[in-house]
Amino acid sequence: MEPGGVSVSAVLPAGGSGERLGGATPKQFCAVQGRPLVSYAVRAMERMSWISDIIVVVSPENIETMKTIIEKYGHKRVTVVEGGITRHRSIFNGLKVFAEKEFSSHLLQKPEIVIIHDAVRPFVEEDILSKVVMAAKEHGAAGAIRPLVSTVIASAADGCLDHSLERARYRASEMPQAFLFDIIYEAYQQCTDYDLDYGTECLHLALKYCKTNAKLVEGTADLWKVTYKRDLYAAESIIKDNLSQEVCVITDTNETAAQVGFLLPESLKSQIKVEAVSTSQSRNDSHLQNIFSGQCYNFVCVNDKKCAIEETQQLVHTLEKSDIPLLYPVVLIS
Amino acid sequence: MEPGGVSVSAVLPAGGSGERLGGATPKQFCAVQGRPLVSYAVRAMERMSWISDIIVVVSPENIETMKTIIEKYGHKRVTVVEGGITRHRSIFNGLKVFAEKEFSSHLLQKPEIVIIHDAVRPFVEEDILSKVVMAAKEHGAAGAIRPLVSTVIASAADGCLDHSLERARYRASEMPQAFLFDIIYEAYQQCTDYDLDYGTECLHLALKYCKTNAKLVEGTADLWKVTYKRDLYAAESIIKDNLSQEVCVITDTNETAAQVGFLLPESLKSQIKVEAVSTSQSRNDSHLQNIFSGQCYNFVCVNDKKCAIEETQQLVHTLEKSDIPLLYPVVLIS
Repeated sequence: MEPGGVSVSAVLPAGGSGERLGGATPKQFCAVQGRPLVSYAVRAMERMSWISDIIVVVSPENIETMKTIIEKYGHKRVTVVEGGITRHRSIFNGLKVFAEKEFSSHLLQKPEIVIIHDAVRPFVEEDILSKVVMAAKEHGAAGAIRPLVSTVIASAADGCLDHSLERARYRASEMPQAFLFDIIYEAYQQCTDYDLDYGTECLHLALKYCKTNAKLVEGTADLWKVTYKRDLYAAESIIKDNLSQEVCVITDTNETAAQVGFLLPESLKSQIKVEAVSTSQSRNDSHLQNIFSGQCYNFVCVNDKKCAIEETQQLVHTLEKSDIPLLYPVVLIS
Repeated sequence: MEPGGVSVSAVLPAGGSGERLGGATPKQFCAVQGRPLVSYAVRAMERMSWISDIIVVVSPENIETMKTIIEKYGHKRVTVVEGGITRHRSIFNGLKVFAEKEFSSHLLQKPEIVIIHDAVRPFVEEDILSKVVMAAKEHGAAGAIRPLVSTVIASAADGCLDHSLERARYRASEMPQAFLFDIIYEAYQQCTDYDLDYGTECLHLALKYCKTNAKLVEGTADLWKVTYKRDLYAAESIIKDNLSQEVCVITDTNETAAQVGFLLPESLKSQIKVEAVSTSQSRNDSHLQNIFSGQCYNFVCVNDKKCAIEETQQLVHTLEKSDIPLLYPVVLIS
């Protein structure tokens, strides 16, 4: 159910060059546990059934790469849009898909609310997405914030300290942000080339050009932006950590196996997240695909039917095809 | 050689409770690749022969833990001091060891320059330490800075955006910082209880109470502060990465083995950092200890003397005793 009964779409700027990362591959395309970072962010949006369209804005040279990623990981409701030379120009391009017929071959349905989220923030949860959408509905604009980790200082022209800011009075502006579509689109239409070339903050544009004071929503620590190589390391460790906390038990319909398949999840579920599926269900590709796209699991297949080897092989094949990140190999108990 | 020919000591506040990490153990005592985080920061200081005293300030309940760490990892030139209830009070206590006889049983030699560095920033290099010391000698105070990762915003009383700061004009204040001892000590003596209880920025105190505009020195990305659990993950990955780039080849004095021991480092050194030691040298405990305390290595022992098994065993024993972090086990080629 959409928060506040409004229509919502999302724009994910993914046009950065990743120069701070110090590698040739822009960070949004770096593989984390075998999957490009951008795919995690797209999946996080995709899980929200109430987000209609997901616009991923990439630089011209990466359009094919992005389309391949969408194909490979089975992402749905995604439109790839060519970005501009700066972050603001890319976001503006993403918004135009909903408003300017000339820009796209098919105009997408304009949403009441648009979420803007970075492709390099892979761990965004439903809670914060709902909160910024609700707050944007009420205030016109909203954004996630976090406490500052370091003191912020202003330097003078001579490279010396001019003054330091009182840390408690300031916050780091993070993502996701959400806006009434008409407000942020108006802001982008009004703003100057200087804004488009040197600005980075959407909340600032909404304030400056539409007099909209964004509601600030306290976010969780996992909203951080993958910026440096160490952040890729951290993302990989967090994903491994999550994976090790999840297991999917798949059984056949045979009674004994079903019982084992029932007892195993029961005894495991106090420790980790368990999803139990019977083999007959697993044959239904779309059900299993939903599990795959929704979450990452370790899979346990409990199977005592003698003739079930074929079904099991089919299941392993489906798992292989699915390209889901697996921490441990599938365990087959036959 | 000390930078600028001045005497230098260091104060490492390590009194934090690590509440943002979400664990019971304060982050400075969390094990990273088997070694507490604080030990990496101490070692980074210890490597600079020109730093005379290293003062580690910990909360009363962690004094014994810290002393055990110093003992276990063979840290030298370290004095453990009891911290106060805030960061500033802890740093002030650390400085008093050089200035107030009542505070310590033996007054340490007051340095011209004092470095202040966080116990939870494990990767500080000589280059930035020298730079802040030199700049502090000239300007009275100096500190490492980094570009802001996120836009900084000010919130109004109603929880809405008041204004956002132009990111390019501001910097994140990081560590290490360095001060003429007399300036920072004067600042701490002059400052109010409010400063001591709610402030966090030493550069601010030097400016406010001694009219000293600190020189700001651009630091590298690895100066970041371990704050959240993801930062511990990142630190661990960086250490593993460094370890995998280093190898120590130990040979006996036999000619054939020595030749292998010579060829191996030669062929490896374009790829990774190699340190070659002969077994006869390795018998000299203090030489090997210097290597151990200076760096982390993967060790390769090349050994073809038949009678050398005893020496090799002794070497393995020394390695075990040394508590250095090893990524891969020692390889013995006999």
